[in-house]
Amino acid sequence: MRKVAIVGAGMTKVDKHWRRSLKELFGEAGTAALSGCGAPKVDALIVGNMCASDLSDQNNIGSLLADYLGMNPTTAYRVEAACGSGGAAFLAAYTAVASGIYDVVLTGGVEKLTDGVGGNTTFSLGKAADAEYELFYGASFVSLNALIMRHYMGFYGVPREAFADLSVMMHRNGSKNPFAQLPFEIKRETVLNSDMISDPITLFDCAPVGDGAAAVVLCPLEDAKRYSDAYVEVAGVAGASDTINIASRDDLLTFRSTVVAADRAYRMARVTPSDIDVAEIHDTFTITGAISLEDLGFCERGKFHKMMENGAFEPGGLVAINPSGGLKSRGHPVGATGAYQIAEIFLQLTGRAGRMQVPDATVGLAQNIGGSGSCAFVSILRRG
Amino acid sequence: MRKVAIVGAGMTKVDKHWRRSLKELFGEAGTAALSGCGAPKVDALIVGNMCASDLSDQNNIGSLLADYLGMNPTTAYRVEAACGSGGAAFLAAYTAVASGIYDVVLTGGVEKLTDGVGGNTTFSLGKAADAEYELFYGASFVSLNALIMRHYMGFYGVPREAFADLSVMMHRNGSKNPFAQLPFEIKRETVLNSDMISDPITLFDCAPVGDGAAAVVLCPLEDAKRYSDAYVEVAGVAGASDTINIASRDDLLTFRSTVVAADRAYRMARVTPSDIDVAEIHDTFTITGAISLEDLGFCERGKFHKMMENGAFEPGGLVAINPSGGLKSRGHPVGATGAYQIAEIFLQLTGRAGRMQVPDATVGLAQNIGGSGSCAFVSILRRG
Repeated sequence: MRKVAIVGAGMTKVDKHWRRSLKELFGEAGTAALSGCGAPKVDALIVGNMCASDLSDQNNIGSLLADYLGMNPTTAYRVEAACGSGGAAFLAAYTAVASGIYDVVLTGGVEKLTDGVGGNTTFSLGKAADAEYELFYGASFVSLNALIMRHYMGFYGVPREAFADLSVMMHRNGSKNPFAQLPFEIKRETVLNSDMISDPITLFDCAPVGDGAAAVVLCPLEDAKRYSDAYVEVAGVAGASDTINIASRDDLLTFRSTVVAADRAYRMARVTPSDIDVAEIHDTFTITGAISLEDLGFCERGKFHKMMENGAFEPGGLVAINPSGGLKSRGHPVGATGAYQIAEIFLQLTGRAGRMQVPDATVGLAQNIGGSGSCAFVSILRRG
Repeated sequence: MRKVAIVGAGMTKVDKHWRRSLKELFGEAGTAALSGCGAPKVDALIVGNMCASDLSDQNNIGSLLADYLGMNPTTAYRVEAACGSGGAAFLAAYTAVASGIYDVVLTGGVEKLTDGVGGNTTFSLGKAADAEYELFYGASFVSLNALIMRHYMGFYGVPREAFADLSVMMHRNGSKNPFAQLPFEIKRETVLNSDMISDPITLFDCAPVGDGAAAVVLCPLEDAKRYSDAYVEVAGVAGASDTINIASRDDLLTFRSTVVAADRAYRMARVTPSDIDVAEIHDTFTITGAISLEDLGFCERGKFHKMMENGAFEPGGLVAINPSGGLKSRGHPVGATGAYQIAEIFLQLTGRAGRMQVPDATVGLAQNIGGSGSCAFVSILRRG
């Protein structure tokens, strides 16, 4: 198996980009990623996206973006795994390079939700859930996760305020991120007093969805120095699936897809959770963030708030969680989120994360979830 | 690079499956593919699909289908490249096995167009074209291909009847295919006198779209005999992109994506067009079939009808073209079509194609196009 490196990364600010199309967003991110490593010839473009068909009337965006970026006749296709599309595209791109067939692969994700030509954003996002058993009955993502959060609070006796503090931490981190959608600090009361969305989830428990694109350039590890002195090794990458509807699961308080994908990625990278210096986790809602911390092995079940009180998840703590602000503050451009996470870990491990920099970050992890945990993709990167 | 084999294949009949869902269709094809090779444990599911979001309100079908097939917690994701989705998924699955990370991968495609819960099938299919430069202005696939066909007839002086004969050949072949959507023979007059769709394309120049699913099982070549005595080697697999809108191309009478993908696949497999015994080509319209024959190197440009008159493309001729009936007679379940093509070549090379069997077929090719040639995926298989 050929080892794989990341040699460049780029992203747009997550925002409501009213005047910018799919092409323009991914064009900016892709160009930034490529120009950071000497603009190599690209052998394949593998892009994650969820909603382009519904909201931009456009499928076939592999070809669309390859053309816009001047890469024809490259190999191009789209990967979709709902909110996990970016992580899944990265996995596909990793196998493309590891196989020995493709040398330089541009991968990433793009999402354009604002100012779509058609469709309804909330309904479109709902298609990540089970159309027959959830969506048809009116269950939205926030309501499904509200069920989980209520159950979690009762089962473990965790106070509602603990979740608010997770949101506060994400916003504190994100306030230092120039690409964040909501780059401002908040207080615990901001979360507690914000509008109720689906009890007990309030507005500030929710990650904002937005428009954006992120991209990274992959190449064989042995060639990495040819493209850039700042590179990271892809030490582990794995996915796992679970039931798409949450009613079919044995345990609502853990996402088996994350547990299994993380276990696979840790074993592949020959590391344990305690080796991880910095992690970008998938906190669609504060409850998703809390469960992810446990599923990734960063804390015991039902104890995330105790760890937070000790500063375990701050830069300089046991493992710095979401220095970018995570989905909550950086924003959640759905099919691009997994690509943002990996691009941010790349910046951390190459010492270029600016005010977000975690000191001496050597090993990083990105966790990207699709649906309500119906799939997860975990990637582990190591400083080159 | 690890060599890869196909050890099992399965498909449903292409049809208007009013009462069967995405899950049921892919469940049948996937189960058939797996049961044909001893039902091995599957390490990843990579599925091609175009229209599930629009017409079934369902994204995230990697997880959906993995769950339905009892594969959790496998790695699962969807690949989309419009009508080329099946071929692109096969390429992704090939790299997954070749990389050494995944041993057994189930890949294929599924499409469900009939009895959708929402959306408009024609408009949904139009999203494979350029939304801004083609779809918005009302250009449909058939009208774009009608422009190409009219130009072809004028430029080369090829009579309209030649295209009708291509359709007749496909139906003659497809009449022997138990899984074909339109398994009956037609006459030249059937094509010439059928309803005009977009001048000069009549109804019987067009492939019917339909519901269906096809799947194949991939594993390392060195392990193939463990699963089945009937296996084929994946000798070459490649993709190529082109402009998504046809107005931006230098030459409308060739699809550069096919030419480049075929060249890459031929070189990878170390074969030439004359080595191919049987090919499944992408004949969405008769003009697409004609141009594909040329782009793949099976005949000179503007000469396909001369070759046909000599029986070059019949079973036993120079290269047997679409013994399954091709898109025209077997049917075109969009995102599944590329998977059907590969499954059919597998049957040919393992001598199990029944009444469609091409004598002594040793090397086969599948060519799958996305959009109006905005991407193409070419796979070359060799008898094991």
